[in-house]
Amino acid sequence: MKHTDIKNIFANCADYIGKQTVVCGWVKTSRNSKNVAFVELNDGTCFKNLQVVIDKEKFDAKVENAFPVGTAVKAEGVIAESAGNVCEMSLVSYKILGESPLDYPLQKKRHSLEFLRTMPHLRVRTNTFLNVQRVRSVLAYATHLYFQQNGFAYINAPLITASDCEGAGEAFTVTTRAWNDTAKSEEEYYAEDFFGKRASLSVSGQLEGEVAAMALGKVYTFGPSFRAENSNTTRHVAEFWHVEPEVAFAELDDIIETVEDYVKFIVKYVLDNCPEEIAFFEKFYEAGLTAKLKNVVESDFVVLDYAEAIKLLQQSGAEFVFKPVWGEELQTEHERYITEQIYKKPVFVTNYPKDIKAFYMKQNADGKTVAATDLLVPGVGEIVGCSEREADYNKLADAMTKRGMNIDAYSYYLDLRKYGSVPHSGFGLGFDRMVMYVTGMSNIRDVILYPRASKEIR
Amino acid sequence: MKHTDIKNIFANCADYIGKQTVVCGWVKTSRNSKNVAFVELNDGTCFKNLQVVIDKEKFDAKVENAFPVGTAVKAEGVIAESAGNVCEMSLVSYKILGESPLDYPLQKKRHSLEFLRTMPHLRVRTNTFLNVQRVRSVLAYATHLYFQQNGFAYINAPLITASDCEGAGEAFTVTTRAWNDTAKSEEEYYAEDFFGKRASLSVSGQLEGEVAAMALGKVYTFGPSFRAENSNTTRHVAEFWHVEPEVAFAELDDIIETVEDYVKFIVKYVLDNCPEEIAFFEKFYEAGLTAKLKNVVESDFVVLDYAEAIKLLQQSGAEFVFKPVWGEELQTEHERYITEQIYKKPVFVTNYPKDIKAFYMKQNADGKTVAATDLLVPGVGEIVGCSEREADYNKLADAMTKRGMNIDAYSYYLDLRKYGSVPHSGFGLGFDRMVMYVTGMSNIRDVILYPRASKEIR
Repeated sequence: MKHTDIKNIFANCADYIGKQTVVCGWVKTSRNSKNVAFVELNDGTCFKNLQVVIDKEKFDAKVENAFPVGTAVKAEGVIAESAGNVCEMSLVSYKILGESPLDYPLQKKRHSLEFLRTMPHLRVRTNTFLNVQRVRSVLAYATHLYFQQNGFAYINAPLITASDCEGAGEAFTVTTRAWNDTAKSEEEYYAEDFFGKRASLSVSGQLEGEVAAMALGKVYTFGPSFRAENSNTTRHVAEFWHVEPEVAFAELDDIIETVEDYVKFIVKYVLDNCPEEIAFFEKFYEAGLTAKLKNVVESDFVVLDYAEAIKLLQQSGAEFVFKPVWGEELQTEHERYITEQIYKKPVFVTNYPKDIKAFYMKQNADGKTVAATDLLVPGVGEIVGCSEREADYNKLADAMTKRGMNIDAYSYYLDLRKYGSVPHSGFGLGFDRMVMYVTGMSNIRDVILYPRASKEIR
Repeated sequence: MKHTDIKNIFANCADYIGKQTVVCGWVKTSRNSKNVAFVELNDGTCFKNLQVVIDKEKFDAKVENAFPVGTAVKAEGVIAESAGNVCEMSLVSYKILGESPLDYPLQKKRHSLEFLRTMPHLRVRTNTFLNVQRVRSVLAYATHLYFQQNGFAYINAPLITASDCEGAGEAFTVTTRAWNDTAKSEEEYYAEDFFGKRASLSVSGQLEGEVAAMALGKVYTFGPSFRAENSNTTRHVAEFWHVEPEVAFAELDDIIETVEDYVKFIVKYVLDNCPEEIAFFEKFYEAGLTAKLKNVVESDFVVLDYAEAIKLLQQSGAEFVFKPVWGEELQTEHERYITEQIYKKPVFVTNYPKDIKAFYMKQNADGKTVAATDLLVPGVGEIVGCSEREADYNKLADAMTKRGMNIDAYSYYLDLRKYGSVPHSGFGLGFDRMVMYVTGMSNIRDVILYPRASKEIR
C-alpha cells in the first residue's frame, strides 16, 4: 500500500505542491456545501489533519455520505496550497478501507476523560490521547538520546525477582501455582512453583543498576516497575515506567548536576519537537503550560538544605495541615510551597534526616542526615528521588542490621562495597508523572495506554 | 568527583596530550618492572583500558602493591602518546577509592561462562560481559533511532493483563493473595485479589499495539514479555525483551520491507559503532562474525513461498530428522538449511498454512494459507515473526470461533475491525536473541544481566 505519511507532506509542503499523491487516514470531521465537500484526514503521524477538498461534480452521488467520522480512507489527489498557507489535497479518487457505522462511540463532540477511560481501545483515537501518546514517545526518545549522548549504557534490570526487598509488602507475587493448590508450608508451596521459590515483580531496578554501574560506570534503566499499593489517587498506578540512572565516581553534587541537565534536556526537547501538541494542552488542559516548561529549561535550579527548608516553612507564616518539623517527611503541601511560593522554580532539597530515608543512602558525617535529595517542581512537588549510595561496607551493613533486614539476602549488594567500592549515586524518575507534568494532564490514568490500579484492569 | 571519562580521552587523544588529567577506574591488570609499573585502568565507558605508567622513584614503596586486580582508583597524571599511537597516562598522584582483597573471585585468568553465571553481580566486570552489555545498549538505541527516524511512536503496552490470551497456559499469574489463602471457587479467590480478577503477565504487546496503530498509524513497543515455559534450552528464558512494531496501511509486502530495513539498520549501526567489541567477539566467540554481519547488511533478503520452501527441502537430498511436509511447521534444521545451505543469506518464508499459525493472521484468498512470514538468518534460523493481521471482522470472528476462543473477551479487538478497519501488519523480534546473533554468544543467559528461567532465579 504505497502511500505518503501526512507528516511528510506538511514537513515538505513545497515539494508536494502540484503533485499527485496518495495518502491514507481516518476521517476526523467532514462538512458539505453545495458543490464542494471537505474531509479532514489524520493518519496518526502528526497533529495536523490533511484537508481533502472534493469537487462533488466529479464524483457520483455516494460521495456526499462516504465519510462519516472514523471512516478509513485511501485518497489520491493533487496537493495544493490552501488559503492558510498549508497543504491540502484536491481529490482525484478514493477507496473506503473501513467503514465507521453510526454506533461508533466517538462521534464529533467532546467526551469527558472519565467516559473515555471506559474504552481504552478507542480513546487513543481522540486528539487528547493522540497528543499524549506522541509527547510520551518523544519524551522517551529524549531520555535515550540524553543518556546515550552522555556515555551511559542502557541496561535491563530484571522484572521478576526473588530478592527479599524492603517494602516487599508492596510487591506482586509472580506464580504458576493454581488458585486451589495447597501445601503444608510457604516453603513447600513455592518449592513447587516455576522458580522453586517465591518470586515477585520488581519495585525498582536500582540495586541491579548499582551492580552494572560498578562495571559499566554510567548506566540507566528505563523499564516498568510495579507497586501493589492500594492508594486510589490521581498519581498512583500499579504498573509504571521508571527511569533509574546510576553513576560510578559520582557524589551527591555530581548527580545533582546530572539530574538538572537531564530534566532540562528532555523538557526542552519536547518544547522544540512538539510545539503543536504543547499548544493544544495549553489551550485545553493547563493555562500557562508553555511558560511553566520554559521556566524549567531556563532556571538555575535551587539547592536547599532540608534543615533550611524546615526553617523557611516554619517562618513562612503559611497555614499547613501538617506542621513542618525537623525529622518528619516533607508533605506535598510543603514541597509545593517551597517550589511555588518561595522560589517559583525547581528546587533540590538535600540532606534529609536518615531515619525517614532508605537504608542504602550515604550517611553524612553529622550522623543525623543522609546525602539524599528530592527534586521539587512547581505544580507537582517531588518529581525525582536521588541519593549518593553508601559505599562503606560496615556502615551499610550496620544500617541494614538496624532496620532488621536479612543481610544474607543482600550479600551480593554488600559485595559491591567489598571489591573495588567507589562513591556512586543515582536517581529515579517516574516517567508517567513526567508525562503528566509536561502535558498538563492531571490524572495518571490518562497518560498510560492501559492503566493498572487496584480493581482497575481490562 | 570531577574527572574525565576514559572514552573521551581516546576519542580526542590529541586534545589531551601534555595535559594534566583526572580519571577514575578499576584495575584490570598491572605489572611491575624494576623502575616502572604499569596499571591498566577501565572505567566502563569504553572497551580500551587506559595504561597508567608509574615512575616508582617518584612514589613511596607502597605503590608497588597498591593495584591488585579489581581495585578502584582515582588517578591524576599527564596524558602522553605511547608507542602504539594511543594515549597513556604518566601518573602524578593517586587515591585508592576501594580495595580489592585477595578473595576477589575474578582474578586475572579466564573463567568459564558457567562459573560466571553463578555470580551475576560480578561477571558484568569481565571483558565478555562488559562488551555484551555495551553492544546490547547500542542495539537498543539503534532500535529507538530507527523507529523514531521513520515516524513510529513508541508505546508501552501493559505488562499486567486480564485478557484471556491464547496460550494463557504459558502466562504467569500476578497476585497479592498469600500462599495459604483459600476460596470456594476460582472466581471468589481472585475476586479478593488486587485487581478483582485473575491477572497475568503479558506474553506479547501485539494486540495493544494494534489498538495504538489504529490511531497513531505506526507504533512500536520495546519492553519485556514473559513466558512460563519449562523449556530449558540455550535460547529460552521466562523474561525477555521484545520489539513489536505495528503499522497501519501496510500489507505483507510493505512490512517485509520494514523488517529488512530495520534489521539492516541495527546491524550496520553496531558494526559502525562497536568495531572493537565485534572484533573481540570474533576472536573469542565466533570466527567469521564480522563477515556474517556484513552479509546481512549487504544482501538483498530472499522472499520464498512456504510451499516452494517445502519443495526445495524435499528435493535437496539432505537428511533431516523431521521430514519436510506441507502443512507442518518448519523445524530449526529446515530453517537453517534454507538460509545457510541454499541461499547463504537472510530469507523471508511467506504464506504458511493457516492451521499452524495464529488466529489473528490475514487469511489468503486460497483458503489454505495466511499472509505470515518468518525471517530466517544463517546461524540461528527464525529471528523475526511477522504477519499481516486479519482486518475483516467476520473472517476474524470465524477464525476465533473455530479455535474455541472466548469472543467476548476480545470484543475490543474485534472493534478495531468494526470501526475504520484498515489493512495492517506487524512483527515481533526477540531482542535478547538479536543480541546473541550480533555478539556470537551462544547461550541467552549470557546476554542478560539477570536471566530468569525455570528454577533459575537469584
